[in-house]
Amino acid sequence: MNRVAYAVVVLAICVASWAVRAADDPLPSWNDGPAKQAILEFVHATTDQANPKFVPPAARIATFDQDGTLWVEHPMYSQVMYCLERVPAVVKAKPELATVEPFKTVLSGDREAMAKLTMRDLEKILAATLTGMSVDAFAAEAQKWLETARDPRWKRPYTELTYLPMQEVLKYLRANGYKTYIVTGGGQDFVRLYAEAVYGIPPEQVVGSAGGTRFGYDKDGKPFLTKEPRLLLNDNNAGKPEGIHLMIGRRPYAAFGNSPGDRQMLEYTKAGDGARLAMLVLHDDGVREYAYGPAQGLPATRVGTFTQALYDEARKDGWVVISMKSDWKRIFSFE
Amino acid sequence: MNRVAYAVVVLAICVASWAVRAADDPLPSWNDGPAKQAILEFVHATTDQANPKFVPPAARIATFDQDGTLWVEHPMYSQVMYCLERVPAVVKAKPELATVEPFKTVLSGDREAMAKLTMRDLEKILAATLTGMSVDAFAAEAQKWLETARDPRWKRPYTELTYLPMQEVLKYLRANGYKTYIVTGGGQDFVRLYAEAVYGIPPEQVVGSAGGTRFGYDKDGKPFLTKEPRLLLNDNNAGKPEGIHLMIGRRPYAAFGNSPGDRQMLEYTKAGDGARLAMLVLHDDGVREYAYGPAQGLPATRVGTFTQALYDEARKDGWVVISMKSDWKRIFSFE
Repeated sequence: MNRVAYAVVVLAICVASWAVRAADDPLPSWNDGPAKQAILEFVHATTDQANPKFVPPAARIATFDQDGTLWVEHPMYSQVMYCLERVPAVVKAKPELATVEPFKTVLSGDREAMAKLTMRDLEKILAATLTGMSVDAFAAEAQKWLETARDPRWKRPYTELTYLPMQEVLKYLRANGYKTYIVTGGGQDFVRLYAEAVYGIPPEQVVGSAGGTRFGYDKDGKPFLTKEPRLLLNDNNAGKPEGIHLMIGRRPYAAFGNSPGDRQMLEYTKAGDGARLAMLVLHDDGVREYAYGPAQGLPATRVGTFTQALYDEARKDGWVVISMKSDWKRIFSFE
Repeated sequence: MNRVAYAVVVLAICVASWAVRAADDPLPSWNDGPAKQAILEFVHATTDQANPKFVPPAARIATFDQDGTLWVEHPMYSQVMYCLERVPAVVKAKPELATVEPFKTVLSGDREAMAKLTMRDLEKILAATLTGMSVDAFAAEAQKWLETARDPRWKRPYTELTYLPMQEVLKYLRANGYKTYIVTGGGQDFVRLYAEAVYGIPPEQVVGSAGGTRFGYDKDGKPFLTKEPRLLLNDNNAGKPEGIHLMIGRRPYAAFGNSPGDRQMLEYTKAGDGARLAMLVLHDDGVREYAYGPAQGLPATRVGTFTQALYDEARKDGWVVISMKSDWKRIFSFE
């Protein structure tokens, strides 16, 4: 073998062994570091029957917040974008709303005025755009929007703005017998429309804020459900563990979030026996995504706030903070 | 081969082929007839990719009422027995209740007086025995009761009073890719305690009447959930399809019940496209179990009523009525 041929063979062996190592790595979009290490160690410990922290397959439950944890939440939650963009259609059906606030402001398209809308204004918009129609009519409208709407920065469907490293965690946990759930402050009916296609999570494993429905019959006697403006579950803060109890009935072994709305879910998860994994995504990458806190001196925000108090609780209680900037090699699959 | 040896061989072949046939039958406790046939045909149609009624595995959802459908509900629902038997302990903790109705009547042990308790009395007993404690404290108490309590007729744990033919349906559906759910008017937290052991149904696949919980911290700062007397879901009648939408988010392909409380669930199931199976258990076997209606001239009852109107709707809309007497070869596994 001449020297060139020899070099080629050595190179081929190196490439092959690198490829094998890469294929062996269930989290290739993660940089080596404490966050990646914590996930790998948790899975090894809980799936090894010889380990005292072994968890039987039936009890393997992992819960994920969605906005800011599994996909982009800035400049505004996708579902709120949907609701705002539905306002013209709602006003077309009820023209009397055109001169009534907050609909008037939304119709004006004045972004500055819209940014000043209060939580109460937002609730009126959510009620008008998410309730009062049949479950099927809502699903059809929202599905159409999901297919056609584009986010303002990357000009892509919102459903493409999911974090590749978190997709890898979902798959890695499932490959190890974990049942993965979304536990979101967002609307359950909204998230269920795309959770299977986007995250591999079936509708029945999406827990979210949920309103009541009302069973009734149409003119042909066919039964249908109408979405009502009656909140059953506000799946934020204490509502997250309460929602987990209602919808899942078991305490998770792993929970992932990114804001104080996830605090109680992480506390509830960590309060269980044995190995429990609690992780928080910190948005500290203003170049590849967004940077906001105000924890660790990051800019303040109204959307997906990560407070210093949350950061301190995480450090104190052994939760792992994921730095988007340093822990994630790649953020999106389209990069 | 002599004639005796020949006869032995023939007999062995017959026994072997009978054993094979029995092993091939997924519903051995069912007599041949329209009910068994309907189940077999539904499964064949929805799992055969060449059939226009094929259902993709992810959409295969089957829902089962519990009391009177999966297990015995007479002379009284098991959970109500639990609540009544918990009253002395509740009164011990709050002695002032001893002289207050309906607790006074329950303490008296006077069965005749207890039979006259109103729905409002019962609600007070349920609230006193099912709420106000932590989720874990309730689970421990109810678990203890389930292990020690015996039903008045067979003197067996309530959890043994499940119908073998329905257990076969659950297993047969699951073996064919169906996700089986309990959708019960009973308390979700109660049924979840034994659903996995008794029916092979994990807690997250039990939908039932559910009260809210309240997240809080104990004196050591450890989070826990308290059961509150605030009804989130009355999982009866219209509450069944509403609960299915809330907790599952998909319309079932098959639904099983036994009383008007299941009517809307069956209507909702049948209103879907393609093959849909709706079945009702009729308790017409006073010898092996109980006989009650008042449909078809069976004796009237306050527990698990099967009205003639329900029977007529079933006949009209292609639901299948299961006769315990003629469709079930065996009712209990302990027979």
